[in-house]
Parts: sequence; structure tokens; C-alpha cells
Amino acid sequence: MASTPLTLDTINPKVLECEYAVRGEIVILAQKISHLPLIIIIIMLCSQILYCNIGNPQSLGQQPITFFREVLALCDHPALLEKAETRGLFSADSIERASEILHQIPGRATGAYSHSQGIKGLRDKIAAGIEARDGYPADPNDIFLTDGASPAVHTMMQLLIRSKNDGILCPIPQYPLYSASIALHGGTLVPYYLNEAAGWGLEIAELKNQLETAKSKGINVRALVVINPGNPTGQVLAENNQKQIVDFCKDEGLVLLADEVYQENIYVPDKQFQSFKKVARSMGYGEKDISLVSFQSVSKGYYGECGKRGGYMEVTGFSPEIREQIYKLASVNLCSNISGQILASLVMNPPKVGDESYESYLAEKHAILSSLARRAKQLEDAFNSLKGVTCNRAEGAMYLFPNIDLPKRAIEAAKAVNTAPDAFYARRLLNATGIVVVPGSGFGQVPGTWHFRCTILPQEDKIPAIVSRLTKFHKGFMDEFCD
Amino acid sequence: MASTPLTLDTINPKVLECEYAVRGEIVILAQKISHLPLIIIIIMLCSQILYCNIGNPQSLGQQPITFFREVLALCDHPALLEKAETRGLFSADSIERASEILHQIPGRATGAYSHSQGIKGLRDKIAAGIEARDGYPADPNDIFLTDGASPAVHTMMQLLIRSKNDGILCPIPQYPLYSASIALHGGTLVPYYLNEAAGWGLEIAELKNQLETAKSKGINVRALVVINPGNPTGQVLAENNQKQIVDFCKDEGLVLLADEVYQENIYVPDKQFQSFKKVARSMGYGEKDISLVSFQSVSKGYYGECGKRGGYMEVTGFSPEIREQIYKLASVNLCSNISGQILASLVMNPPKVGDESYESYLAEKHAILSSLARRAKQLEDAFNSLKGVTCNRAEGAMYLFPNIDLPKRAIEAAKAVNTAPDAFYARRLLNATGIVVVPGSGFGQVPGTWHFRCTILPQEDKIPAIVSRLTKFHKGFMDEFCD
Repeated sequence: MASTPLTLDTINPKVLECEYAVRGEIVILAQKISHLPLIIIIIMLCSQILYCNIGNPQSLGQQPITFFREVLALCDHPALLEKAETRGLFSADSIERASEILHQIPGRATGAYSHSQGIKGLRDKIAAGIEARDGYPADPNDIFLTDGASPAVHTMMQLLIRSKNDGILCPIPQYPLYSASIALHGGTLVPYYLNEAAGWGLEIAELKNQLETAKSKGINVRALVVINPGNPTGQVLAENNQKQIVDFCKDEGLVLLADEVYQENIYVPDKQFQSFKKVARSMGYGEKDISLVSFQSVSKGYYGECGKRGGYMEVTGFSPEIREQIYKLASVNLCSNISGQILASLVMNPPKVGDESYESYLAEKHAILSSLARRAKQLEDAFNSLKGVTCNRAEGAMYLFPNIDLPKRAIEAAKAVNTAPDAFYARRLLNATGIVVVPGSGFGQVPGTWHFRCTILPQEDKIPAIVSRLTKFHKGFMDEFCD
Repeated sequence: MASTPLTLDTINPKVLECEYAVRGEIVILAQKISHLPLIIIIIMLCSQILYCNIGNPQSLGQQPITFFREVLALCDHPALLEKAETRGLFSADSIERASEILHQIPGRATGAYSHSQGIKGLRDKIAAGIEARDGYPADPNDIFLTDGASPAVHTMMQLLIRSKNDGILCPIPQYPLYSASIALHGGTLVPYYLNEAAGWGLEIAELKNQLETAKSKGINVRALVVINPGNPTGQVLAENNQKQIVDFCKDEGLVLLADEVYQENIYVPDKQFQSFKKVARSMGYGEKDISLVSFQSVSKGYYGECGKRGGYMEVTGFSPEIREQIYKLASVNLCSNISGQILASLVMNPPKVGDESYESYLAEKHAILSSLARRAKQLEDAFNSLKGVTCNRAEGAMYLFPNIDLPKRAIEAAKAVNTAPDAFYARRLLNATGIVVVPGSGFGQVPGTWHFRCTILPQEDKIPAIVSRLTKFHKGFMDEFCD
């Protein structure tokens, strides 16, 4: 390779710095195993690879919501709407909705680039959905449709970060999109630790403390990332806590970046999702009081349409000239994919009482969410039954983040092979059971503590096998390395 | 807005520097006009806004290729494949192809995140399509599926650019994605001028000259962007010229970034598209000799599926550790949208002789391409008939880039309102006729020359009206400002 020009020494060092654990070493190892000849896999595992690493429900057998897919198919091939046979294959309200959507798209052209923020008629529907959710007005001009939430986060980081001296407050543990994006844009991640002992609580004293520490190092902190419901923690913030966060951002002049992609994933009766915009408006704060970006995605929720890459950000409390810069950034990639745009409008406006699909839609939604709640509880209980493991409940989102009190000898064995102790555990777990989890070090954790993230997404009939394999593995691991 | 934290002085200055003319001021003006009440538009224009600014065929009435949309609809709603009525609504080969594609997707899950590079089975099909096109092997592991070509270009710029001292050779005129992406990543655009008098020819002496000039200023030139067929020039490179370019990159240790998104858009019998990879391989250069990235998109071609945001880059001649970094960047956004991935596999493997759709597919394709060729010629002739205007032929792509010899008084009038003279012309054209074109200053041009880019995409029945309005406007403009 001597004659080709690029080397690791000559590429952008920010790319080298960036890490992305949910698709990192353990996953690549799992992919390699799954590409081996079948017979070898059988010998190695006596079972299949179980991807518990990533919030990707449909990859594990979750079926899409029928109504959403009917509408997408009709929008992809509008000629169907003119044929009589279509009525036999599609629900009446999916036909009606597809017609309505096509009517909102200039020239009915689902194959055309749209307005850089997304199709206006779809943004109207999304704004209406936000209003119905929050009880406060939403403006379609505040909506920027994106290919999932990730590009939206990159856009905001690109806008905010000028140099290493610009800091973004991020929870630890955090979803590694944030650390990756901050690294790629050359900024500094300013960590604030969630309190594991208080159910991964977000404490204002910790925010203030970390902000002051960063300031004292010359870091200009520009924004606060809050993930609610939490990834990887599964925590759902209490409204009162959200109010404190809003006031903190307002007082400190920080942009509030609210990752609200799990807003539909709530599993416990004592918690509810409240958007930060609703909370801010309920406190009497308007456009001029707080700069707030809410990220939403079609990848999560009960629908779990990750492959469609749809999502939006709702951008409020920025001056017109800053909005213009955000618009320009959106323009450089022309627009997000139209199927994703359509889906974003659908998830924010699902079938309503009286629609033909309503009952079946509700049954599908309820089946998924109630099953997720049961799986969350089963896995949480299983983790808590393991020696040296404690696990907070998943109030929302799609993950558990158990804490493993690793034996000293395991930590030494990991060091001997130059591996983080939790990655060492995760690798052994993969090799022994085929279960793929993400080591806690990919998300950040209090130094000296060890975790892993495990999704609650395997189908319910697989959970007993996972629990039994995990329990057996863990016992063996702890026996092998007991102090 | 006093209390919100972000101001133009405190955002990332690279964002401020970035410009993106194809969605810039003239287009925003057109959008504003088209949002006015209908009666006012009628009074203002006595006719509609004609978007000739952007390569967006379906927004101007081009219909999608039926086969592609049938397959997409079936993949979106696979339940259709199990119903008897479906055979009455879809072609047999679309049903077969959709089944085959679903079989290639793990768990048939079109709603799941895929491998970060895209679904392996679809990459296999794309590699097969490249092999059939070029007659040289293609490796599915070299394919990175992306949401259109734009994110792929950003990925490469992110990899290549470390600081302002890193330069990227770009044609002038260029597609502003390149200048925008280089600005956003903080690099330096090193211009090389295409020779308008020689049909927008790319001359090696100019490349060498500009490379030396950049080097003498301390710029470390890292890559050469070539757009073939050319945007906005419409030029198609001769094979011999491509060989010189390959040798230049090899000799100078540059990465060759080949924008080949218009590979299907060729309108003249004396030119053919040859991929740079084919040319390099035909010269005997393999993986170890040249680092080459080819960008392809489903947005262009005869299919023009811009809204689907599908595309790929074929990455060859990089070391495994650099490939790993590119993979990591792809991972940070998880994957590109699955419908776009499917479409990319379809355009690289359209129906074949014997397939039920083959005849109708071929007829649709031929109708679009032959009509585009006619429109290109009509508009080219029209431009060349205008006083003070000269226009090279569109051999390929979707654009004409006429040169306007603006009268001195028009240039002065433009300066008086603080506007580039070609933007002044374009704005007047829009206000007088509703025709939206992009000023040449958005693409770059030899200082003191003025151009605009006009797509060849309005439907054929609209061309006479465009020509007549344009001719009338131009005459009036020239009369008004004659020296």
C-alpha cells in the first residue's frame, strides 16, 4: 500500500478520536462469527447470535405497524390508488391518508427533493401532532425533517462547536452519538454524572459543579444534552426535575438539546413523558426565553422503523439569522428521504377513533409496548438475581444498564490482554453465549465501576433462553475469577 | 432575542463561510413568491414559477420508472406478497425481485438498521452491476451505501481535511456541494479552471499549474474532485483525458474523488461514460496503485429519484486501517435508508431481456433520455440565439451553463444594489418570467465572466414557453442596459 496517499498519520485526527461503541469491536466480532460457515457457528455456540447491542426492534422480529406500511407502499406507487383491486388489499383509511399525503406533496412527486426542511404539508401534520401531545402551539416552520435523529444532532454540533474550547454538557453514561459527534466537530465533551444510586437521577448540583469545573479550565460551555427517556439508563425524568433543567439552561445561557426519541417508550405507571418544550411553556417561558431543540425519530417508539431513517428536530428560541444558518446546513444535503418524512408525519398522527385501522393499530401498538414492559421487567429481575450485579429498572427507552461488580482477578485478566474489564466480560459473554451487549465503557461510567448495555428487544419467547444462558455464563465467569 | 445564547458571532465560523447557491437567495425568493396568494402570483407573473435551478426531475413532472416503484411498494409492505390480488396489480418480475430482495435482508426486516455499509445482498447486486458496466471486478465490501451522494462526499472530506492547510482540487465551475463541504470541514478549495472555449475541457497543464501554486502557498493538496459528466458544465470527459487524470493523481499522490452521478445521462452519440475505475484498471492500475472513490446516486440518471435519497460510494485503493476509519464514520449515522439502498441496487440491476417489465421499462427509460436530449438541444440553441450569450452543448448531466456577456451598465446597476451581476440578471429573470436559474457565481467562473446554470428538466411541452419568455426578457434586459 506504499503508493496510496492516505495513512492514519495523515487523516483528520478528529476522525481517529471519534469512537462509536454500539457498532464497535464486540459487534464486529459478532458479525464475523455470524459470517462463518454454519457448521462452525453451530459448534461454537450451539445457538444463534443474539443482538442485544442496539435498539433495532425489527431486526429481532418485531413486525411493523400495518397502517404505516400500507400508507408508505401507496405513496411509493401512487398508481395503485387508481386501481379497483387496491381496495381489497389496503384499509380505507390508509388509502385516504396516502391520497391526502400525495396531495400535500407538490406534483404528488414522492421522488422529488423537497423543501430543505421537509415537505410543508407533512410539517403541518407534525406540528399538529406536537400540539396535540403538549397542549401548546407548535410551528411547522420550526420543524426540520432529517434522516433519523443522528444527522440532526450533527447539525446542531456543527453549529455550536468552533474549537476544543467549546464544551457540550453530556450525561454519563450517554449515547455515544454525542461523544462521537462532539469529537468529529472538534469540541469538548463536558461530562455530568447521572446518579446510579438514585435510579440514574439527573442532579442539578452535579450540572452546576461540572459547569464550573469546565469554566475554570477555560471551556466555553454552549449546550446541555439531556436524553429523556434515558439511553442507556432507561430513566424517565420527573417533571419537577425537568423544570430545574430548564431554569439551569436559561440561567446559564445554554442551548438545551433534548433527545426525546424514546417519548413513546414508557413502561411504568408512575412515570409519564413530558416534552421539554411543554415543560418550558408551562413555566411561562416562550421563544425569547430559552433555546431548545427537541430530537424525535421514527426509529424508536413502538413502531421501531430504524431502517426508514426518518426523524425531525423542533428548533425553538433561536434568532432568525441563526435559523437561517440551520436552514443552510439542512440545504447542503438537499433534504431527508421522503418515505422517512412521510413516516414521521404518520407516527405523530396515527389512526384515530373511527378510522378503519384504529382497532388493529391500537392492538398492534399495545401488544408491542406491553410486551416490551414485560421483557424489561424479566431482564431486570434476571440481572438483579446475578451475584455482584445490580440493575435499575427500565422506566422507558429500550435498555437496561446493569452494574457488574467485577472480581479483581477479572480486572487483572482484562488488563493483561489490554482490554477494558467490561469489554472483557462482554467478549467472554459473546463467545460463550452468542449474546451481544455493549460494554459500559462505550457510554461512560463512574471510573472504577463496570456496566454493560443490554436492550430489552429480543422477542419474548427468547427471553427465558437469554436469562438461562446469561445466568450460567455469569456464574461460570464469577467462579473462574473469584477473588 | 437578547436572552437566547446563540449569535452569528458565536456560532461555528465554518458554518457562516459555507455557501450553497443551488438553494440560495434566488430559490428562497422563488419560494416566497410561490407562497403568495394565487391571485397575486397571477398578477405578478401571469404564469407559474419554473424551477430550472436544481436537478430535480420529478418535481417538474417526470414520472418514476414503474418497475422500481413496484418493487419499493412490495418491500415496504411485504404482506402484499402473500395475497392473490397482488398478481393483478404488480408485474411478475417486480414480485420476484421484491421477494429476492426481502430474502437478502436479514429477517426480511426493511424497518431494521442494516450493516453500516448497507445490506450485504444489495451490495452484492451493486457490485455485480458495476462489473457488468465496467468489465472489471467489483467488491461488495468496497461499497458504502449512503443517503444520496452528498453524505458520501462529506464523509470523504471529513476524512481528508485536517485544517485550512489541506487543499482539495475542484473544478471551476463546480457543483457547490464541494465548496460547501470543504468550507464546513475547514479546508481549502484549490480551484482548477475548466476551459470553456474547449467545451469545458479539463486540461492537465491547468491541474499541474494550480497544484504547484497551491503548494507554493503551503497548501497540502490531498485529493482531486472530477465531476463526469460535468455539473454544471454538461461536459463528458474523453477516455484519453481520463487516463491523464488518473496518471496525474497517481504521480502526485492524490485521492481521486470521482463524482459519477450522471453516468446514465449522456445525450450525444460521440461521447460515452467510462468510469474512472474502469479507466484505471484498463491502464493496469490495481488496488495498490491509486486511491479512488466513485460516487453514484439514485437522484440522477433517467430515474431521477431524488426524494429517495439513495446512493453509494465505491472505495478502492485504501489501506485496511483507513477503510476501518471510513467504516467508523458510516457507523456513526448507523446506516442509510433501506428504500434508498434497495433503489440503488435496482438502478444498477434494472430488468433484463425476458423479464415481464423489460419492454415497458426500456420504453420508459428511452422516452425520458431521448426527451432530455431534445430539451438539451432546444435550450442550447435558444441560448445561443440570444445576443451576447454563448452556450456549450450539454453532452451529459442535466444542465446548460450559458455565458452572458453582460453590458457594463448592467454590471454597474448590479454593483449599485450590492449584487453579483449574474445574480442581478437571475433575479430580474425570475421577477419577469418566473424562471428560476442559479447564478454562475454560485459555481465559480473565470473572474469577469458571467453565467447561469439552467437545468434541461422542464417537461417538453413547457420548453417553447420558456424559450419565448427567456428570449423576450433577455432582449428587454439587453435593451435596458445596452452600453
